[in-house]
Amino acid sequence: MVLSKNKIKYFNSLNLKKNRDNEQVFIAEGIKLVGDLLPYFKAKYIVATTEWLSKNSHIADEIIEIENIEEMKKITLLSTPSSVYVVFYRSQYDFNLQDLLLKRELILALDTVQDPGNLGTIIRIADWFGIKNIICSHGTVDVYNAKTIQSTMGALARVKVHYVELRDVLDTFRKQGYPIYGTFLDGASIYNTELAKYGIIVMGNEGNGISDEIAKLVSDKLLIPSYPADELTSESLNVAVATAIVCSEFRRR
Amino acid sequence: MVLSKNKIKYFNSLNLKKNRDNEQVFIAEGIKLVGDLLPYFKAKYIVATTEWLSKNSHIADEIIEIENIEEMKKITLLSTPSSVYVVFYRSQYDFNLQDLLLKRELILALDTVQDPGNLGTIIRIADWFGIKNIICSHGTVDVYNAKTIQSTMGALARVKVHYVELRDVLDTFRKQGYPIYGTFLDGASIYNTELAKYGIIVMGNEGNGISDEIAKLVSDKLLIPSYPADELTSESLNVAVATAIVCSEFRRR
Repeated sequence: MVLSKNKIKYFNSLNLKKNRDNEQVFIAEGIKLVGDLLPYFKAKYIVATTEWLSKNSHIADEIIEIENIEEMKKITLLSTPSSVYVVFYRSQYDFNLQDLLLKRELILALDTVQDPGNLGTIIRIADWFGIKNIICSHGTVDVYNAKTIQSTMGALARVKVHYVELRDVLDTFRKQGYPIYGTFLDGASIYNTELAKYGIIVMGNEGNGISDEIAKLVSDKLLIPSYPADELTSESLNVAVATAIVCSEFRRR
Repeated sequence: MVLSKNKIKYFNSLNLKKNRDNEQVFIAEGIKLVGDLLPYFKAKYIVATTEWLSKNSHIADEIIEIENIEEMKKITLLSTPSSVYVVFYRSQYDFNLQDLLLKRELILALDTVQDPGNLGTIIRIADWFGIKNIICSHGTVDVYNAKTIQSTMGALARVKVHYVELRDVLDTFRKQGYPIYGTFLDGASIYNTELAKYGIIVMGNEGNGISDEIAKLVSDKLLIPSYPADELTSESLNVAVATAIVCSEFRRR
């Protein structure tokens, strides 16, 4: 198959969330990333150079071979095109609240995280620390955004990301006895607080933190103390960095 | 002053490290970032809209007022131009090895960290955890890169970043009895290892980790354990994320 005008149009259409959702696909580019994802996700299209195709085992509904990497510029989102561009089918899973409630696991909740790179890094952190589910408010950035995929590094194969009515879902968890943790500047030091083996860890928006309506549902306010306690430091930590420190504390115990 | 052709040429020349170094300056853009930096750094040029100038106190060698934010497009590095663009003078400080040795503090060492965003996030983490000095190999990305400045969020005012012959400097620290910590896949769990009150924490390159020649100088190999220990997870954590977890562990004790 060749990279026809119609195909170029189709691939570019997938830069819009609406079209990715309709097709239930996502895009991944780059030798490393594609290599990480191919064992876990079914490929709909692989666009690749002759060289990549000859060196890598690959299965896809359709394979498009290009002779020159320059051709990739017609579809790539990268500033420097890579030798491989893949449209993957998404894993199909439902958000089963009843099931999650019974499992009594540690779950991450994201309240309007906006930066695709931060979301990708958070998925990688969740994967590292054995967190299988992330629930996101509808205002959180799309997990199938190309930049998010780029920074997940394949962790997406092991972590489920659900978009939900976050207030309602947290309310249900709370009523079922789940502790709801969140970081606040007036929280108690995470180093000295008792942490349950299961519960929800809420992380907030990059600029505004956890929203007021979600903050009301938090049962345990935590703080990552700066050091030394009495000196002026940065106003806050990056949301992915804070997520990492909190998850590390939960798993350390 | 107006935004003359000569000035536009000058500002654009600062996108090259060589020219920023010659002038001993760096660029910061955006209301929040400029607001964070203005109290700490001397401004050489402020380019801003009439509105920004009327609302913010500001001192600079030269102030350039623009009527329309569209004009900013001639100089900005942002995809959406902001109402303020500033060329700041750098803080002047020397790398005084003798002085640092005597202080017996915790110091971060970066071995060829490549991503400007990662470096900026690491500086913010250092600031949060009271680390005053970061020593970088010459192969580490420029701290005065606009993307690094963007992600430091003002922490640059409190953390000193030095570019040094990393191998030689670490060797001196080691000979003076400093423990040199680094994270490795075959290290000992950081949660159960005794950590000194001072020492060097080495963080490696995004793709390749700590280089062989630097690894030889590490006295204490650490591991951030994934969870659960026997399951497949992401190959590694992002370098800024790993830095955060390690620094948090040092400061918790």
